[in-house]
Amino acid sequence: MTVDRIANARLRDRVVSAETAAALIQPGETVAMSGFTGSGYPKAVPVELARRIESAHAQGLPFQISLMTGASTAPELDGALAKADGIAMRMPFQSDPDARNRINEGKLDYIDIHLSHVAQHVWFGFYGEIDTAVIEVSAIREDGSLVPSTSLGNNKTWLDLAKKVIIEVNEWQPAGVDGMHDIYYGTALPPHRKPIPLVNANDRIGETALRCDPDKIVAVVRTNGPDRNSPFSPIDATSEQIAAHLIEFLQHEVKRGRLPANLLPLQSGVGNIPNAVLAGLAKSGFRDLAAFTEVIQDGMLDLLRDGVLSYASCTGFALSPQANETFKENIDFYRERIIMRTQEISNHPELVRRLGCIGMNGMIEVDLYGNVNSTHVMGTRIMNGIGGSGDFARNGFLSAFLSPSTAKNGTISAIVPMASHVDHTEHDVSVIVTEQGLADLRGLTPRKRAQVLIDNCAHPDFRAQLQDYFDRASRESYGKHTPHLLPEALSWHQRWLDTGTMKG
Amino acid sequence: MTVDRIANARLRDRVVSAETAAALIQPGETVAMSGFTGSGYPKAVPVELARRIESAHAQGLPFQISLMTGASTAPELDGALAKADGIAMRMPFQSDPDARNRINEGKLDYIDIHLSHVAQHVWFGFYGEIDTAVIEVSAIREDGSLVPSTSLGNNKTWLDLAKKVIIEVNEWQPAGVDGMHDIYYGTALPPHRKPIPLVNANDRIGETALRCDPDKIVAVVRTNGPDRNSPFSPIDATSEQIAAHLIEFLQHEVKRGRLPANLLPLQSGVGNIPNAVLAGLAKSGFRDLAAFTEVIQDGMLDLLRDGVLSYASCTGFALSPQANETFKENIDFYRERIIMRTQEISNHPELVRRLGCIGMNGMIEVDLYGNVNSTHVMGTRIMNGIGGSGDFARNGFLSAFLSPSTAKNGTISAIVPMASHVDHTEHDVSVIVTEQGLADLRGLTPRKRAQVLIDNCAHPDFRAQLQDYFDRASRESYGKHTPHLLPEALSWHQRWLDTGTMKG
Repeated sequence: MTVDRIANARLRDRVVSAETAAALIQPGETVAMSGFTGSGYPKAVPVELARRIESAHAQGLPFQISLMTGASTAPELDGALAKADGIAMRMPFQSDPDARNRINEGKLDYIDIHLSHVAQHVWFGFYGEIDTAVIEVSAIREDGSLVPSTSLGNNKTWLDLAKKVIIEVNEWQPAGVDGMHDIYYGTALPPHRKPIPLVNANDRIGETALRCDPDKIVAVVRTNGPDRNSPFSPIDATSEQIAAHLIEFLQHEVKRGRLPANLLPLQSGVGNIPNAVLAGLAKSGFRDLAAFTEVIQDGMLDLLRDGVLSYASCTGFALSPQANETFKENIDFYRERIIMRTQEISNHPELVRRLGCIGMNGMIEVDLYGNVNSTHVMGTRIMNGIGGSGDFARNGFLSAFLSPSTAKNGTISAIVPMASHVDHTEHDVSVIVTEQGLADLRGLTPRKRAQVLIDNCAHPDFRAQLQDYFDRASRESYGKHTPHLLPEALSWHQRWLDTGTMKG
Repeated sequence: MTVDRIANARLRDRVVSAETAAALIQPGETVAMSGFTGSGYPKAVPVELARRIESAHAQGLPFQISLMTGASTAPELDGALAKADGIAMRMPFQSDPDARNRINEGKLDYIDIHLSHVAQHVWFGFYGEIDTAVIEVSAIREDGSLVPSTSLGNNKTWLDLAKKVIIEVNEWQPAGVDGMHDIYYGTALPPHRKPIPLVNANDRIGETALRCDPDKIVAVVRTNGPDRNSPFSPIDATSEQIAAHLIEFLQHEVKRGRLPANLLPLQSGVGNIPNAVLAGLAKSGFRDLAAFTEVIQDGMLDLLRDGVLSYASCTGFALSPQANETFKENIDFYRERIIMRTQEISNHPELVRRLGCIGMNGMIEVDLYGNVNSTHVMGTRIMNGIGGSGDFARNGFLSAFLSPSTAKNGTISAIVPMASHVDHTEHDVSVIVTEQGLADLRGLTPRKRAQVLIDNCAHPDFRAQLQDYFDRASRESYGKHTPHLLPEALSWHQRWLDTGTMKG
């Protein structure tokens, strides 16, 4: 027996084609869509919208929208709309190659903000009104409430604030995801805010479905397409070394009594290095761990399966095709252990601080004094965005930033004299890890941080050059609290632009 | 009838001279003292300790301590110990000229951290053990509990964690301060933290006196000396213009419905510009305001007196001698309207976000893209420290940074191509105000921020030069999301060092 995913008769009557739905979006609109790291984004309407935009452009007519989401999406959303030159303004995060190129050519306005700020800044009125929301769900219940799919992101806010709503019901998403979500309806604007009653990473404080005024729902579109599922590369030696250094450090902190044996809730960025850290935790005898994070990726599913991780709280997924199969096949098991929240909750400073999360995020570079650049290559070209790294780095128990010590075949050092852009200041960075080693910056002055970063984290190819800069700056700098030689501070980046290597 | 400020007999028996008390502190100790912006710091023991240190040094003996406080103190504490070369490590904030010089000569280790992080990082064990706490109070109750004086800072944490405690009972402090404090004893280490039950700036959630195990109290010293009370300069035209721009903006936000008519709780840095803003608010018809801030200065007392401000929450004071007299004379009136909290509560990210504070802080410089430098002159010489500005800038409803558009007789521009140090990233800065005007950076891309900063905030003497840099960078930059010419990005600072002016 096939159950219709649209159990509400009134909304079943609003089913239209993606093309018809896309035609409801007008040029100049602010459109808010679902989607977080390639999960739970609308699969059909954005593609049709891009087609409409291209056709308008072919006729010489202007057509662009302002686009907000949870975080990054996929080729069918960011890719299609960027290629069609259909995005005037994008917020708050992207990782699409076409969008990125347009942003760095100065042709696409991009606003890169903390993921915990998005919903409240829109509620505050800082981004004007939302004309249309386009939200993927896995099902519509008989009462009209919406069962989310594989990400929640800002969907609650988009549905609450949008003037009109287009729903995509994606049958590809497992029906068993129903019950996995926890949508908190207790948020408010100041001065009416109350404490958020969550004290453990697995507390349930909300509802399992999204509310939406049915009068606002102007179209429902049936889809059946996969989330963006890119395979993870096998864990390489560099990632394994980084993971080993971090895990040794965590074991040391447990021994010193600064962390409980089952640590504190883990937050982990997405990618091969965090995946290696997760794999390493499994092998190191840690048990009963918890995650309070943004995204669940392959490694976390394995940890849950093996009981290393007791439960995980997230706002989205980033799974390989294989992990996705495992997830679907064992959805009842995972539904007991995974709680999906809106991103204003998954990244909330109140909760990250209360739980004492251990933040583990990637970086582009760190300077001698512990200032981290997460977003800009050579200070000017945006890579993706800050995402939620700041929410965890500022408010958690520990903030670790992880990166190989070099990039681009060894021509770029991840440890530089001065960061060419700063996303996490010296006040927010506690631990730096490269495959060379780990620098524990807690309780160190800027000058002491420099020496431990050179000694422990820098690649041997750049160590002498960094030491030389630091020694000369320590002698000749105007102020010696944070020694710099200003004419040289960014010369490594310029040298790379001029000659293809930072080596001098 | 004179009431003895020491009502506990057992502790009255421990009264000794400051010299005797100071002799209990050994070389190499970590010493945690009271004090926040020149209020409530110990007046006698640090001076005697400095004398001891000088005498040890005269005999060729090493003697230094690691020193933690709430924030800045006064000549009798930071000044005396810095002059004696008695401080090996200082944390978390200072504003003393002698200490600053030593830090910038590379002779004094200084760790500049968010004021909301101090207590928890010490509890986490990141700074080792506290050997001695030296805490000023206004009285000791019969039951041995301690009535704080004019600042709370980290006193609760210092008393809880120190191995031994020296109490200074300062009769100069008004006895009527008893009842003004609210000391929250509900904090814990993760994973045992609970929501902090404060929903209004004037909620009382704690106790009016500090607890301390009497067995740890090794000495009690009677003092009778004033807090550091420096007169405020009269409000100058520049400060008045900055205040007028900000107030016009707040009125505009109220009209647009983005702020309630009585705004949201105000946080205000210390100094002449914030004082001018407060004076301006009084004249602009605002009523029923609230403050949730770190420090109460003269202007706030006036607003409370006039009913413009209904109540104020703080962790310390910075009053002129005249305002201090007013405060003492009307202590019963002010005790009903002022609540003093520990700084982990006054600056807590959970509470700053819940209340939606309006942060108003000074800055040294801001770059074209909205990155703010609050701490380092020419990127290398520390001025004071980040203090609590980050706690409010990141988590509040709005974060405004205020500064004259030039410094040092017009030779330095507060708007620069690239900030020479970043304390508040582009992701945390919403409004910039100079006497020239106001830049509302909300919802703007980096490039749009640049143009509005040049047009609205830069001094006319630097406007063409900034525009020239921005135009050339927009054409020639490697990436055009955040355009820069790296060899020139810090050249303004170097030019000032070389020639005495940023003008090129």
